[in-house]
Amino acid sequence: MKKFFTFLLAALTFAACNKPEAKMTNDQSHMTKKLITRIAEIEVNEGYLEEYLAAAHNVGTKSVKSEEGVICIFPMQVKDSTNTIRILEIYRNEEAYQAHLQTPHFLEYKQGTLHMVKSLQLVATEPLAPETMPLIFKKY
Amino acid sequence: MKKFFTFLLAALTFAACNKPEAKMTNDQSHMTKKLITRIAEIEVNEGYLEEYLAAAHNVGTKSVKSEEGVICIFPMQVKDSTNTIRILEIYRNEEAYQAHLQTPHFLEYKQGTLHMVKSLQLVATEPLAPETMPLIFKKY
Repeated sequence: MKKFFTFLLAALTFAACNKPEAKMTNDQSHMTKKLITRIAEIEVNEGYLEEYLAAAHNVGTKSVKSEEGVICIFPMQVKDSTNTIRILEIYRNEEAYQAHLQTPHFLEYKQGTLHMVKSLQLVATEPLAPETMPLIFKKY
Repeated sequence: MKKFFTFLLAALTFAACNKPEAKMTNDQSHMTKKLITRIAEIEVNEGYLEEYLAAAHNVGTKSVKSEEGVICIFPMQVKDSTNTIRILEIYRNEEAYQAHLQTPHFLEYKQGTLHMVKSLQLVATEPLAPETMPLIFKKY
Protein backbone atom coordinates (compact mmCIF):
# COMPACT_ATOMS: atom_id res chain seq x y z
CA MET A 1 0.00 0.00 0.00
CA LYS A 2 2.84 2.38 0.87
CA LYS A 3 4.40 1.81 -2.58
CA PHE A 4 1.08 2.52 -4.22
CA PHE A 5 0.72 5.86 -2.43
CA THR A 6 4.31 6.78 -3.21
CA PHE A 7 3.68 6.05 -6.89
CA LEU A 8 0.39 7.98 -6.86
CA LEU A 9 2.09 10.91 -5.16
CA ALA A 10 4.89 10.97 -7.73
CA ALA A 11 2.47 10.66 -10.66
CA LEU A 12 0.17 13.42 -9.46
CA THR A 13 2.98 15.81 -8.55
CA PHE A 14 4.51 15.22 -11.99
CA ALA A 15 1.15 15.85 -13.66
CA ALA A 16 0.65 19.05 -11.67
CA CYS A 17 4.12 20.37 -12.53
CA ASN A 18 4.24 19.28 -16.15
CA LYS A 19 3.99 22.60 -18.02
CA PRO A 20 3.60 22.79 -21.81
CA GLU A 21 6.87 23.07 -23.74
CA ALA A 22 7.81 26.52 -24.95
CA LYS A 23 7.93 25.56 -28.58
CA MET A 24 5.59 25.95 -31.52
CA THR A 25 3.20 23.02 -31.85
CA ASN A 26 0.98 22.48 -34.90
CA ASP A 27 -1.94 23.79 -32.88
CA GLN A 28 -0.05 26.97 -32.06
CA SER A 29 1.00 27.45 -35.67
CA HIS A 30 -2.67 27.18 -36.63
CA MET A 31 -3.55 29.65 -33.83
CA THR A 32 -0.96 32.14 -35.04
CA LYS A 33 -2.58 32.45 -38.45
CA LYS A 34 -5.85 33.50 -36.83
CA LEU A 35 -4.39 36.07 -34.44
CA ILE A 36 -5.36 39.72 -34.71
CA THR A 37 -2.34 41.80 -33.75
CA ARG A 38 -2.12 45.56 -33.92
CA ILE A 39 -0.92 48.76 -32.35
CA ALA A 40 -3.57 51.37 -31.61
CA GLU A 41 -2.15 54.90 -31.76
CA ILE A 42 -4.25 57.44 -29.93
CA GLU A 43 -3.87 61.17 -29.50
CA VAL A 44 -5.84 62.52 -26.55
CA ASN A 45 -7.41 65.99 -26.60
CA GLU A 46 -5.86 68.57 -24.28
CA GLY A 47 -7.58 68.65 -20.90
CA TYR A 48 -8.84 65.07 -21.07
CA LEU A 49 -5.68 63.12 -20.37
CA GLU A 50 -6.39 61.99 -16.80
CA GLU A 51 -9.95 61.04 -17.63
CA TYR A 52 -8.85 59.16 -20.75
CA LEU A 53 -6.10 57.28 -18.91
CA ALA A 54 -8.60 56.11 -16.29
CA ALA A 55 -10.98 54.85 -19.00
CA ALA A 56 -8.18 53.10 -20.93
CA HIS A 57 -6.93 51.53 -17.72
CA ASN A 58 -10.39 50.26 -16.88
CA VAL A 59 -11.11 48.68 -20.26
CA GLY A 60 -7.63 47.15 -20.54
CA THR A 61 -7.65 45.46 -17.16
CA LYS A 62 -11.26 44.22 -17.44
CA SER A 63 -10.65 42.79 -20.93
CA VAL A 64 -7.46 40.95 -20.03
CA LYS A 65 -8.95 39.59 -16.81
CA SER A 66 -12.35 38.50 -18.09
CA GLU A 67 -11.93 37.63 -21.78
CA GLU A 68 -10.19 34.38 -22.63
CA GLY A 69 -9.64 35.52 -26.23
CA VAL A 70 -7.88 38.74 -25.26
CA ILE A 71 -4.26 37.61 -25.20
CA CYS A 72 -2.85 41.08 -24.68
CA ILE A 73 -4.08 44.62 -24.21
CA PHE A 74 -1.06 46.59 -23.13
CA PRO A 75 -1.58 50.35 -23.06
CA MET A 76 1.42 52.65 -22.85
CA GLN A 77 1.88 56.40 -22.60
CA VAL A 78 4.64 57.85 -24.77
CA LYS A 79 7.13 59.48 -22.38
CA ASP A 80 8.09 62.42 -24.64
CA SER A 81 4.52 63.13 -25.69
CA THR A 82 2.23 62.34 -22.78
CA ASN A 83 -1.02 62.86 -24.75
CA THR A 84 0.06 60.05 -27.10
CA ILE A 85 -1.08 56.56 -26.17
CA ARG A 86 -0.07 53.30 -27.84
CA ILE A 87 -1.80 50.02 -27.14
CA LEU A 88 -0.50 46.63 -28.20
CA GLU A 89 -3.59 44.50 -28.78
CA ILE A 90 -3.60 40.78 -29.49
CA TYR A 91 -6.87 38.86 -29.92
CA ARG A 92 -7.03 35.09 -30.34
CA ASN A 93 -9.10 35.34 -33.53
CA GLU A 94 -11.82 37.35 -35.29
CA GLU A 95 -14.55 35.83 -33.08
CA ALA A 96 -12.70 36.86 -29.91
CA TYR A 97 -12.29 40.38 -31.30
CA GLN A 98 -15.96 40.68 -32.27
CA ALA A 99 -16.99 39.39 -28.83
CA HIS A 100 -14.69 41.99 -27.22
CA LEU A 101 -16.42 44.78 -29.18
CA GLN A 102 -19.75 43.75 -27.62
CA THR A 103 -18.62 43.63 -23.98
CA PRO A 104 -20.10 46.20 -21.59
CA HIS A 105 -16.60 47.41 -20.62
CA PHE A 106 -15.58 48.04 -24.24
CA LEU A 107 -18.87 49.78 -25.14
CA GLU A 108 -18.59 51.97 -22.04
CA TYR A 109 -15.00 52.88 -22.97
CA LYS A 110 -15.82 53.60 -26.62
CA GLN A 111 -18.87 55.73 -25.95
CA GLY A 112 -17.36 57.43 -22.91
CA THR A 113 -14.13 58.53 -24.61
CA LEU A 114 -15.33 59.65 -28.09
CA HIS A 115 -14.98 63.36 -27.17
CA MET A 116 -11.56 62.79 -25.57
CA VAL A 117 -9.91 61.22 -28.60
CA LYS A 118 -8.34 63.62 -31.11
CA SER A 119 -7.14 60.87 -33.44
CA LEU A 120 -7.07 57.08 -33.56
CA GLN A 121 -5.03 54.94 -35.91
CA LEU A 122 -5.18 51.15 -35.85
CA VAL A 123 -1.92 49.79 -37.24
CA ALA A 124 -2.47 46.15 -38.23
CA THR A 125 0.67 44.06 -37.80
CA GLU A 126 2.01 40.56 -38.41
CA PRO A 127 4.05 38.90 -35.62
CA LEU A 128 7.55 38.12 -36.91
CA ALA A 129 8.63 35.57 -34.31
CA PRO A 130 5.37 33.86 -33.30
CA GLU A 131 7.20 30.87 -31.85
CA THR A 132 8.41 33.09 -29.00
CA MET A 133 4.82 33.91 -28.05
CA PRO A 134 4.54 30.92 -25.67
CA LEU A 135 7.58 32.39 -23.85
CA ILE A 136 6.18 35.92 -23.72
CA PHE A 137 2.38 35.83 -23.48
CA LYS A 138 0.61 33.91 -20.76
CA LYS A 139 -2.67 33.11 -22.50
CA TYR A 140 -1.05 32.06 -25.74
CA MET B 1 0.50 5.40 7.51
CA LYS B 2 -2.12 5.58 4.76
CA LYS B 3 -3.47 8.81 6.25
CA PHE B 4 0.00 10.27 6.33
CA PHE B 5 0.55 9.55 2.61
CA THR B 6 -2.86 10.92 1.72
CA PHE B 7 -2.02 14.11 3.60
CA LEU B 8 1.42 14.35 2.01
CA LEU B 9 -0.10 13.79 -1.40
CA ALA B 10 -2.68 16.51 -0.88
CA ALA B 11 -0.10 18.95 0.49
CA LEU B 12 2.40 18.40 -2.33
CA THR B 13 -0.22 18.55 -5.07
CA PHE B 14 -1.54 21.78 -3.56
CA ALA B 15 1.96 23.24 -3.40
CA ALA B 16 2.67 22.23 -7.01
CA CYS B 17 -0.57 23.74 -8.28
CA ASN B 18 -0.56 26.89 -6.18
CA LYS B 19 0.29 29.57 -8.74
CA PRO B 20 0.98 33.17 -7.76
CA GLU B 21 -2.11 35.40 -7.74
CA ALA B 22 -2.56 37.67 -10.70
CA LYS B 23 -2.47 40.85 -8.70
CA MET B 24 0.14 43.47 -8.02
CA THR B 25 2.32 42.65 -5.03
CA ASN B 26 4.67 45.18 -3.44
CA ASP B 27 7.57 43.40 -5.15
CA GLN B 28 5.89 43.75 -8.54
CA SER B 29 5.11 47.40 -7.94
CA HIS B 30 8.79 47.93 -7.18
CA MET B 31 9.71 45.95 -10.34
CA THR B 32 7.38 48.06 -12.48
CA LYS B 33 9.21 51.27 -11.61
CA LYS B 34 12.46 49.79 -12.93
CA LEU B 35 11.07 48.42 -16.20
CA ILE B 36 12.34 49.71 -19.52
CA THR B 37 9.42 49.66 -21.96
CA ARG B 38 9.52 51.00 -25.50
CA ILE B 39 8.47 50.58 -29.08
CA ALA B 40 11.27 50.48 -31.64
CA GLU B 41 10.13 51.82 -35.02
CA ILE B 42 12.32 50.69 -37.88
CA GLU B 43 12.21 51.48 -41.58
CA VAL B 44 14.10 48.92 -43.65
CA ASN B 45 15.93 49.92 -46.85
CA GLU B 46 14.45 48.62 -50.11
CA GLY B 47 15.98 45.30 -51.13
CA TYR B 48 16.98 44.28 -47.61
CA LEU B 49 13.64 43.25 -46.15
CA GLU B 50 14.07 39.47 -46.14
CA GLU B 51 17.60 39.68 -44.79
CA TYR B 52 16.52 42.16 -42.10
CA LEU B 53 13.53 40.04 -41.05
CA ALA B 54 15.78 37.00 -40.61
CA ALA B 55 18.21 39.01 -38.44
CA ALA B 56 15.40 40.53 -36.34
CA HIS B 57 13.85 37.11 -35.90
CA ASN B 58 17.16 35.65 -34.78
CA VAL B 59 17.95 38.31 -32.18
CA GLY B 60 14.38 38.37 -30.85
CA THR B 61 14.08 34.64 -30.29
CA LYS B 62 17.59 34.26 -28.82
CA SER B 63 17.08 37.18 -26.43
CA VAL B 64 13.70 36.01 -25.14
CA LYS B 65 14.90 32.42 -24.76
CA SER B 66 18.28 33.05 -23.14
CA GLU B 67 18.01 36.32 -21.19
CA GLU B 68 16.08 36.26 -17.93
CA GLY B 69 15.81 40.07 -17.93
CA VAL B 70 14.24 40.26 -21.38
CA ILE B 71 10.54 40.13 -20.52
CA CYS B 72 9.38 40.81 -24.06
CA ILE B 73 10.84 41.36 -27.51
CA PHE B 74 7.92 41.17 -29.88
CA PRO B 75 8.73 42.21 -33.45
CA MET B 76 5.90 42.94 -35.88
CA GLN B 77 5.72 43.88 -39.53
CA VAL B 78 3.21 46.61 -40.39
CA LYS B 79 0.72 45.04 -42.81
CA ASP B 80 0.11 48.14 -44.94
CA SER B 81 3.78 49.08 -45.08
CA THR B 82 5.84 45.91 -45.11
CA ASN B 83 9.22 47.68 -44.81
CA THR B 84 8.07 49.14 -41.48
CA ILE B 85 8.88 47.09 -38.39
CA ARG B 86 7.72 47.76 -34.84
CA ILE B 87 9.15 45.97 -31.85
CA LEU B 88 7.65 46.03 -28.37
CA GLU B 89 10.60 45.69 -26.00
CA ILE B 90 10.37 45.23 -22.24
CA TYR B 91 13.49 44.80 -20.12
CA ARG B 92 13.40 44.04 -16.41
CA ASN B 93 15.64 46.98 -15.52
CA GLU B 94 18.59 49.06 -16.73
CA GLU B 95 21.07 46.30 -15.82
CA ALA B 96 19.16 43.73 -17.89
CA TYR B 97 19.08 46.16 -20.82
CA GLN B 98 22.81 46.91 -20.59
CA ALA B 99 23.56 43.17 -20.38
CA HIS B 100 21.38 42.61 -23.49
CA LEU B 101 23.42 45.19 -25.43
CA GLN B 102 26.58 43.15 -24.75
CA THR B 103 25.25 39.73 -25.82
CA PRO B 104 26.79 38.14 -28.93
CA HIS B 105 23.34 37.87 -30.58
CA PHE B 106 22.57 41.57 -30.10
CA LEU B 107 26.02 42.70 -31.28
CA GLU B 108 25.74 40.46 -34.34
CA TYR B 109 22.29 41.89 -35.13
CA LYS B 110 23.36 45.51 -34.61
CA GLN B 111 26.53 45.30 -36.69
CA GLY B 112 24.99 43.04 -39.32
CA THR B 113 21.96 45.25 -40.02
CA LEU B 114 23.41 48.78 -39.93
CA HIS B 115 23.30 49.07 -43.74
CA MET B 116 19.77 47.65 -43.89
CA VAL B 117 18.18 50.18 -41.55
CA LYS B 118 16.93 53.40 -43.13
CA SER B 119 15.64 54.87 -39.87
CA LEU B 120 15.31 53.82 -36.26
CA GLN B 121 13.24 55.55 -33.61
CA LEU B 122 13.10 54.32 -30.03
CA VAL B 123 9.82 55.47 -28.47
CA ALA B 124 10.15 55.24 -24.69
CA THR B 125 6.84 54.44 -23.02
CA GLU B 126 5.27 54.05 -19.59
CA PRO B 127 2.96 51.05 -18.99
CA LEU B 128 -0.53 52.31 -18.04
CA ALA B 129 -1.93 49.14 -16.47
CA PRO B 130 1.12 47.42 -15.01
CA GLU B 131 -1.00 45.26 -12.70
CA THR B 132 -2.20 43.32 -15.77
CA MET B 133 1.38 42.40 -16.64
CA PRO B 134 1.30 39.20 -14.53
CA LEU B 135 -1.72 38.17 -16.66
CA ILE B 136 -0.05 39.00 -19.98
CA PHE B 137 3.70 38.44 -19.75
CA LYS B 138 5.19 35.14 -18.71
CA LYS B 139 8.47 36.30 -17.22
CA TYR B 140 6.95 39.20 -15.30
